[in-house]
Amino acid sequence: MRTTTGWQAEGATAILRRALLQRRDLRPDDLAVQIDYCGVCHSDMHALRDHDGKAGHPLVPGHEFTGVVTETGPEVTRFSAGDRVAVGNIIDSCGQCAMCRAGQENFCHAFPTLTYGGSDRQDGSTTLGGYSREYVVRDQFVYPLPDGLDPAGAAPLLCAGITVWEPLHTLGVGPGSRVAVAGMGGLGHLAVKMAVALGATTSVISRSPDKADDARRFGAHGFIVSTDPEQMAKARDGFDVVIDTISTPHDLGPYLRLVAMDGTLSHLGHLGSVTVETMDLLVGRKKLSSAGSGGRPATAAMLEFCADKGITAEIELLPSARVNEALDRLRRNDVRYRFVLDMSDLD
Amino acid sequence: MRTTTGWQAEGATAILRRALLQRRDLRPDDLAVQIDYCGVCHSDMHALRDHDGKAGHPLVPGHEFTGVVTETGPEVTRFSAGDRVAVGNIIDSCGQCAMCRAGQENFCHAFPTLTYGGSDRQDGSTTLGGYSREYVVRDQFVYPLPDGLDPAGAAPLLCAGITVWEPLHTLGVGPGSRVAVAGMGGLGHLAVKMAVALGATTSVISRSPDKADDARRFGAHGFIVSTDPEQMAKARDGFDVVIDTISTPHDLGPYLRLVAMDGTLSHLGHLGSVTVETMDLLVGRKKLSSAGSGGRPATAAMLEFCADKGITAEIELLPSARVNEALDRLRRNDVRYRFVLDMSDLD
Repeated sequence: MRTTTGWQAEGATAILRRALLQRRDLRPDDLAVQIDYCGVCHSDMHALRDHDGKAGHPLVPGHEFTGVVTETGPEVTRFSAGDRVAVGNIIDSCGQCAMCRAGQENFCHAFPTLTYGGSDRQDGSTTLGGYSREYVVRDQFVYPLPDGLDPAGAAPLLCAGITVWEPLHTLGVGPGSRVAVAGMGGLGHLAVKMAVALGATTSVISRSPDKADDARRFGAHGFIVSTDPEQMAKARDGFDVVIDTISTPHDLGPYLRLVAMDGTLSHLGHLGSVTVETMDLLVGRKKLSSAGSGGRPATAAMLEFCADKGITAEIELLPSARVNEALDRLRRNDVRYRFVLDMSDLD
Repeated sequence: MRTTTGWQAEGATAILRRALLQRRDLRPDDLAVQIDYCGVCHSDMHALRDHDGKAGHPLVPGHEFTGVVTETGPEVTRFSAGDRVAVGNIIDSCGQCAMCRAGQENFCHAFPTLTYGGSDRQDGSTTLGGYSREYVVRDQFVYPLPDGLDPAGAAPLLCAGITVWEPLHTLGVGPGSRVAVAGMGGLGHLAVKMAVALGATTSVISRSPDKADDARRFGAHGFIVSTDPEQMAKARDGFDVVIDTISTPHDLGPYLRLVAMDGTLSHLGHLGSVTVETMDLLVGRKKLSSAGSGGRPATAAMLEFCADKGITAEIELLPSARVNEALDRLRRNDVRYRFVLDMSDLD
């Protein structure tokens, strides 16, 4: 086994403490990555909350990170020591089912192995995430980090980025599309940048009027204050695609009503059950969809697109030792727009 | 005013009684239709139930009928006395909004005028439906009944037919499509016939194994008993389009799980709110949609398609005097597959 350092919650607590972690010895197709930057995702917060007092094993969150290859197993041909790489929230899958064969490992029928809290497909051990200095991972689930992408700002692309890229891409957003992004947080601000770069006329829907300047800076053409009934009424039926990244349970009706004839509301920000009025779908033949994460081909394509268009997340970079403060502020929605942890303080 | 006869519920009752009805004198663009056949729709049943004891005015249901033109206003050019015609659930709309201009009068922003229980756009009177011997209607909302379509079996096409045609058509169902129709009643059996005629590989999902023979007779290639977990599991992710025509509130989860990657569940049979698990949409990037009725161009195209393919509803034809019996049996789901009233007994 290899030893590294990371931030871990143990027992009945959601507080992360610095700890020594063990990583497996490299298998033939494994590589070791020195993690330089790891994003702080809403899922990390939820995992810690759910972990609190329940799970018997320690939890190390983190599933959007960038770093440098330090060592490779003998069968690894795509990477060498020194390569800049990125890893997202999926680190293995069955590789055999129809979904894996279609490059949609995120929908693997045997369930993909998650970067933390997952179960390793070979030894059954629980995976420990990217809030640490080193990660050991199958080469197939590592992405080259394209030149020109800042590794700190790129880290959130691996979860927040691919989650919004998937619907934008599969719903065919491009020049002429009218896109609205509801909620401008970690996911939403990347959705705005990507939609704009895809050529769509893009609006932001937010309850925070003070985000209007940022929205314009990210390239948005319009800004709608969701608490203003007049603005919402004026925008009715106006968007081919509405990307709903609001992270708390909310009524989808007002957002469905913004969707144009034959358009789609993609509900991303909040998992769980949602209730819709059939009439809100029926009138205008609207569609409700969701998305989360993406397969390997889409993730690689998204990274290339972002490198080409110069898209990274707007981040607040903190030394990893301030991870509890980051999570606390994320809970209070006090971040513009994603925390990224600098792992070099773990050396 | 003109006088005709029909079946009407008055006051606090859902029982229909024979009554004299008044129709307006023909406006320049009106025509008078002798109604020969009128289908009995689930909506009629709901309208009568809701009407019970509430509305102050009498209710005459019926919004899928066929008949013959008897008289035309001076501006009517598309029809002459003696023409076979059909009328559906919409008899007017604003004609000006984006939806009307796009030929989607069913989504008219000013709300379309319904065939019964609607409010006439000129005099504000409440419309009385097709359970009667004569109807007076704007020529724009009348369809020629194509040659070769039996007028009794064609009547249900005007509501049940167009409601299932809309999603099949707009979701691009054709050769190579895999379609499942959940619930094989008035809507469902027409969906099966149409999907088969469009070239799709078509399966029926029903809790009634005794409908399997009929399903095959309508052209279905597969039959899945919804209460058999093994059959449902085997069909998982198997259909590009699932047309859900089940007329009572039900869990959409089992039907969403039958939808293939990037496919759509079209929820038609039951209005009201529906709850879905985001994960059931997320995994496989599935979409939820709905539909109801259709615009004028789609209705005309559907009738031509049905004439071309020899599609009419499977009906049980009753003299209109037995309308209360028909509604009672419909309530108990005792119909294969649509009641149609023969109005000639009103003469």
